[in-house]
Amino acid sequence: MTVEVDVTIKPKRGVADPEGENTKKALHLLGFRNVRSVKSMKTFRIELELDAETTGDAEEEAVTSAVEEMCEKLLSNPVIHDYEILIVGRQIGN
Amino acid sequence: MTVEVDVTIKPKRGVADPEGENTKKALHLLGFRNVRSVKSMKTFRIELELDAETTGDAEEEAVTSAVEEMCEKLLSNPVIHDYEILIVGRQIGN
Repeated sequence: MTVEVDVTIKPKRGVADPEGENTKKALHLLGFRNVRSVKSMKTFRIELELDAETTGDAEEEAVTSAVEEMCEKLLSNPVIHDYEILIVGRQIGN
Repeated sequence: MTVEVDVTIKPKRGVADPEGENTKKALHLLGFRNVRSVKSMKTFRIELELDAETTGDAEEEAVTSAVEEMCEKLLSNPVIHDYEILIVGRQIGN
């Protein structure tokens, strides 16, 4: 079984986000005056293979713990980043 | 009223995604052998101010058309990128 997970890496509250700030300024200059804030984030869409027997809560737990470990070891910098994990799809078989 | 929108910018099908490819390789090297693919994407979380009278379908239409215009004018490169627009929250008042 294949599970598709979106991992969103975003700056922690209080950490500067110059890309978001400048995107907001550029949108204002282009005439989008109703933009109040822009935050820039990075998303990885990861396809994971799981045993077909892993379903329901066990599946969610297996996926979440694996992806949290990936975030801590590689995808995010815990000093400045928070992350969100969201299961977006599943596919039975290959 | 404030509406929060997530705009995800991702490579079109067939366009190379070296960051995703290399992230996958690094995850394999770290022992995450069950990672089948990784796609890297950029997400902007945009807060938009709308008239309080704009609700329901009209709201969704107003938000989607404004954000599509932002994508075409600034956020994405239509030659290599697709985008997804998702309303993630709304807040009444200021």
